[in-house]
Amino acid sequence: MRALIARAEHALGDVLPPEDQLPVELHRAMRYATLGGGKRLRPLFTYAAGHALGNDGPELDAPACAVELIHAYSLVHDDLPSMDDDAMRRGRPTCHIVFGEAMAILAGDALQALAFEILARGNRARGMDMLSTLGHACGAEGMAGGQALDLTAIGRSLTLAELEHMHACKTGALIRAAVRLGALTANADPHALEALDRYAAAVGLAFQVRDDILDVEGESTVIGKTAGKDAAAGKPTFPSIIGLDASRARLAELTETALQALAPFAARGEMLRELAHYAAHRQH
Amino acid sequence: MRALIARAEHALGDVLPPEDQLPVELHRAMRYATLGGGKRLRPLFTYAAGHALGNDGPELDAPACAVELIHAYSLVHDDLPSMDDDAMRRGRPTCHIVFGEAMAILAGDALQALAFEILARGNRARGMDMLSTLGHACGAEGMAGGQALDLTAIGRSLTLAELEHMHACKTGALIRAAVRLGALTANADPHALEALDRYAAAVGLAFQVRDDILDVEGESTVIGKTAGKDAAAGKPTFPSIIGLDASRARLAELTETALQALAPFAARGEMLRELAHYAAHRQH
Repeated sequence: MRALIARAEHALGDVLPPEDQLPVELHRAMRYATLGGGKRLRPLFTYAAGHALGNDGPELDAPACAVELIHAYSLVHDDLPSMDDDAMRRGRPTCHIVFGEAMAILAGDALQALAFEILARGNRARGMDMLSTLGHACGAEGMAGGQALDLTAIGRSLTLAELEHMHACKTGALIRAAVRLGALTANADPHALEALDRYAAAVGLAFQVRDDILDVEGESTVIGKTAGKDAAAGKPTFPSIIGLDASRARLAELTETALQALAPFAARGEMLRELAHYAAHRQH
Repeated sequence: MRALIARAEHALGDVLPPEDQLPVELHRAMRYATLGGGKRLRPLFTYAAGHALGNDGPELDAPACAVELIHAYSLVHDDLPSMDDDAMRRGRPTCHIVFGEAMAILAGDALQALAFEILARGNRARGMDMLSTLGHACGAEGMAGGQALDLTAIGRSLTLAELEHMHACKTGALIRAAVRLGALTANADPHALEALDRYAAAVGLAFQVRDDILDVEGESTVIGKTAGKDAAAGKPTFPSIIGLDASRARLAELTETALQALAPFAARGEMLRELAHYAAHRQH
């Protein structure tokens, strides 16, 4: 996994425009927002899905970069003052703190365009399928739509189904795209695509359930803190809607669904299995 | 032309997500930002370029919509408080005034994604070329890059070459993409693509020179106003750098370049010629 993270970082460094070319400030903001930190989880899903179908080749790098560029752009825009208003991320000042709000908006916009551009370069097999997958995952029925649902959900009470739909859009759609893009580089048949999509939908949601559980468990170890950050912000969470025990049960169920979906891939699915375990058991 | 504007409006209404589906607010903001006004100049370039090569078919609608969705998203983001801070556009309150800043940012983001998604749908001939054309036109070397150059240019003195480069990115790149996408639907050969690109680059710049001239001429007819809006905002303009007479000469030169590039298309280039005349002679 560490080798694949390094591979993704290297590929990202190559596709991002250089800091010594005009427009310098924009290029600097794009590189700042993308490089130097991050789990690179989405590229890992892409590489792992390609691997599950027998492809570890260089044609995985463009889709791996594309999903990470989209993720990076979404963080830049989410951190803006009118959105989550976050001044720090990964131990560094956020993009708009360093480059100003206008340049941060443009850097996000340009990162999104770059993701599509690098995926469209060359004459990639099944390229149109890849591009429509990415477009759908980013748009009003995907990531941007989930973010909009999240905005309108603050302070309201959601049902479990509404909460799961919001997460399926906000973070799930891009994780599913990351897996599907990796599978498409290996010219996956419809059965494999369907199985991997079941896996990705379950893992994407599991990742979010674990996030909400950590928000509660994390705070319980810190004396004097009475509620997690999300709960305090009035954000609906799995524990706040169905309780902590039911959240743990849902996490186990999602992980089981994900692992079952990987059965056809036998030993080649090992990396995807590791990612599912990571989603369910991570400590931060 | 009027029929083609109606055709573009109709196609846009169809590709934008409906207001009665979740996320309702986001869909409303996207439709508000795109429908109800606008010259639809970029779709006209796409239709006119297809026509010049003998294609008026329905496969022009997706690229015509894609370039207009990109244009609409760029206006939403440009109008934001941290950018140009405009409260009115086309006689209506701007998107962030109606829907709030966060939703306006998301609507712009989702419009950009939608542009790529609709262009990637189906198995369009030369689709990858279209998508990389659009990606490049929107990104750091295109529209977003031009906007970044514009941000850093305010109050500074630019050379004529720097000003032209800024406009070539900021507005020129998308107009060139609009023309190229139309030509690609007609499976244009490299010679036709090259001629049309010369046309589009010249017209795109002519459009901007005319804008700057109008900013000066407009004010001279209004007694008591001593400077145009752009000049007052400290934005570099063609008249401020080379004077009004040289700006008029540059406009004539660019129009001549554009018209010469259309020679090979004979009568079929008439719509593109009309657009060049419009760019040079428009009164608003």
